[in-house]
Amino acid sequence: MYEQTTIAAIATPPGEGGIGIIRLSGIDAAEIANRMFETKKLHNFHDAVPYMMYYGKVMDNDRIVDRGLAVYMKAPHSYTGEDVVEFQMHGSVEALRSVLSLALRHGAVPADKGEFTKRAFLNGRIDLAQAESVMDIITARGQAALVQAESHLSGALSQYVHETREKLKEFITKLEVTIDYPEEDLEDLTVDEISKALEEINQSLTQLITRSHRGRFIQDGFKTVLAGRPNAGKSSLLNALLQEDRAIVTDMPGTTRDTIEESIRIGGIPLILMDTAGIRDAENQVEAIGIERARKSMEEADLILMVIDGSVPLTDEDRRILSSLEGKKAIVILNKYDLEQKAGEAEIRSLISEETPIIHLSAQYVSGIDRLEELIQKLMHTEDLDAGRQLFLTNLRHMDLAEKSLELIHQAQKSCADKLPADFIVVDLTEAFHKLGEITGENVDDELINSIFQNFCVGK
Amino acid sequence: MYEQTTIAAIATPPGEGGIGIIRLSGIDAAEIANRMFETKKLHNFHDAVPYMMYYGKVMDNDRIVDRGLAVYMKAPHSYTGEDVVEFQMHGSVEALRSVLSLALRHGAVPADKGEFTKRAFLNGRIDLAQAESVMDIITARGQAALVQAESHLSGALSQYVHETREKLKEFITKLEVTIDYPEEDLEDLTVDEISKALEEINQSLTQLITRSHRGRFIQDGFKTVLAGRPNAGKSSLLNALLQEDRAIVTDMPGTTRDTIEESIRIGGIPLILMDTAGIRDAENQVEAIGIERARKSMEEADLILMVIDGSVPLTDEDRRILSSLEGKKAIVILNKYDLEQKAGEAEIRSLISEETPIIHLSAQYVSGIDRLEELIQKLMHTEDLDAGRQLFLTNLRHMDLAEKSLELIHQAQKSCADKLPADFIVVDLTEAFHKLGEITGENVDDELINSIFQNFCVGK
Repeated sequence: MYEQTTIAAIATPPGEGGIGIIRLSGIDAAEIANRMFETKKLHNFHDAVPYMMYYGKVMDNDRIVDRGLAVYMKAPHSYTGEDVVEFQMHGSVEALRSVLSLALRHGAVPADKGEFTKRAFLNGRIDLAQAESVMDIITARGQAALVQAESHLSGALSQYVHETREKLKEFITKLEVTIDYPEEDLEDLTVDEISKALEEINQSLTQLITRSHRGRFIQDGFKTVLAGRPNAGKSSLLNALLQEDRAIVTDMPGTTRDTIEESIRIGGIPLILMDTAGIRDAENQVEAIGIERARKSMEEADLILMVIDGSVPLTDEDRRILSSLEGKKAIVILNKYDLEQKAGEAEIRSLISEETPIIHLSAQYVSGIDRLEELIQKLMHTEDLDAGRQLFLTNLRHMDLAEKSLELIHQAQKSCADKLPADFIVVDLTEAFHKLGEITGENVDDELINSIFQNFCVGK
Repeated sequence: MYEQTTIAAIATPPGEGGIGIIRLSGIDAAEIANRMFETKKLHNFHDAVPYMMYYGKVMDNDRIVDRGLAVYMKAPHSYTGEDVVEFQMHGSVEALRSVLSLALRHGAVPADKGEFTKRAFLNGRIDLAQAESVMDIITARGQAALVQAESHLSGALSQYVHETREKLKEFITKLEVTIDYPEEDLEDLTVDEISKALEEINQSLTQLITRSHRGRFIQDGFKTVLAGRPNAGKSSLLNALLQEDRAIVTDMPGTTRDTIEESIRIGGIPLILMDTAGIRDAENQVEAIGIERARKSMEEADLILMVIDGSVPLTDEDRRILSSLEGKKAIVILNKYDLEQKAGEAEIRSLISEETPIIHLSAQYVSGIDRLEELIQKLMHTEDLDAGRQLFLTNLRHMDLAEKSLELIHQAQKSCADKLPADFIVVDLTEAFHKLGEITGENVDDELINSIFQNFCVGK
């Protein structure tokens, strides 16, 4: 165990709920639990049956702080690999604060962000890519992101990195032999062999990176702007989209609306609505914020949904917005299709590129949402992405390291083609080997580790 | 067990955190767990060691939804008195929604608000006063409220109600004997005895109610208004008060700032800052909202903290606000006491009642906050309230029933003094007996029960 301190934190989300958990991890976890938790069946947590929940009371001297369950998880068979005690109490901010405060008085120290998972990593329970996937699970928006994060936690990414590094290592070793014993005539064989192997690694990494670039939306969502004149129907489209999403949510009480309302899911992939504060009152937004700000949002957007009121003739503002869609991924939504159409679809078509689809929706959006979903998936090339079966990089740090590794493989291939001495190739392959190792944490320094875990929440 | 359905809900607070819990309760809890949770050590949750946590995976067919721990609590030894299974998973909105959704597909129904606790009540695990205290624990603001709610959950209130009802029942029985057998000459003895007993009950109930009226702030907090001209220093006072509170909070990572920022605690009792949205930018608020709205807030307030800039002469606006403090509990804070004082304390004193204290604070509020705390406790008569040792009614429903019971005792005492026939007394005492029974739920109808639990959160 790398630390002599015992850390404590509230491990459940902040706020009021049925149940809240305080988690302790470290050498004194059981001893601190002894000092603050009274249960009839147990005198000493060191004697507790691991993973058995004991009912009892958290006591502050003779005062009952709260009643609940305590469980002891003996090192190394715990999340962190250390002795862990969890108190499962009422989900009361005041009670949880009191229990935590008591644990601190009895010798625990407040856990830093992500410190439980950091200890799990430092104690060798999981590698760095798996540790990072824990946070991806917690913050996952949409099924696709969750599936991919679970797959990383399973070790699918670590396995890929491990295998690729093993291949690199094999050829680095072989090349070193040619360097150390140049008199042995291995060269012709090795160059062919290595060219082929490097090309394989190149292709595999290239595919992973390309797929991940397309798939980054699985994790991050599409930045989406609802554009259009006031009264074109942006608010009702938004409501229809939210309603579709909410229909799923309302079956499941206890989920927060706040997190969800900032994004909506289409086919398991989140659309991040930009300027959400304004979009809630979308009709007023354009007027209030002005054309300049709307244009800026559109520039940053991955996807623009341009809403036009089909029941009135096109205005200059419509024309201006339509012209500005050039070069962007956009869908034009010709709205109020149940009314007589006066907007002139031919003119709209003439103002936009031929890749930009036009879709008709009526006020109720009854069947249109499905069609819109299909169009978005097609436009964003997500229809053949299968988060359940394919490996993606969803983390920017991993992506960066994979790209750097690929670049080094390219260099090595070039050196190979140019018949440069083996030393040149070895240097690049060794560097690629290390870069890939940074993904799983086999080759990282403390500073990087600290900066990674600073992005975690407290209590994880 | 009163219900044949198995309910499911997310039991932890909504949002992202280290750990989240899905709770199932009902006859099919174990069976549903069998269908969705895979663990090496267990084939059937009916064979699980109760209260033992099993590590495993929630599976949706062949897809891993999330990894975590599952625990089986066998009826009747569970929170609800029914079979309960809890899944302790990552605190991920998406993962928890997925697990819950799966439980619903396997036959669970979404739990209604407070339905777990309602089932605990209906299955006789706890009485109604205890059930209500569960919600009081969860929503407790401040130590004093938590201590009182824990005491109610312990059964202290139920015990008091039980004892008082026993006394009433004893005398109702004795009186019924005099009614049924009037020829036996018990009357003189009974009237004296009963007068004495009724007076005892009267005094005990009166004390409880009086104490609870004064102590209602333990639960609800004082509605507090920060009054004063713009730039008098309201914002910096608020920051100083918040900082005092935050100093406690920052030791305890993972607690929400949002809930706390609406109220601050002084001596364990919360001050509810009215118009908090505005108070965050308090200097602008008065200007923006106007005099009328400020006056309305002051009328509704339990406590007014009137801040005056001592370094400039009093203005007409100061004078107007000072005059309006008449009849209210208020503290005048003469601010910027480190600068030369020009505000004229004598004039201030002449404008306010002599019960209204004046306190001097400098910009840093270094020592002033303690003094302010003392003054508030004294002004609000909370200094002798001891939530740790005294019983309070913190629930308005209980308060109402206690007051109605006391009223009936008064009537009975009057009938007794007026030497009315025993029937009159019996009717009132029986009614008081029933009213008190409504506190603990010995005498309640379904509609009342439903309305009580509708105030709970889902998952509790």
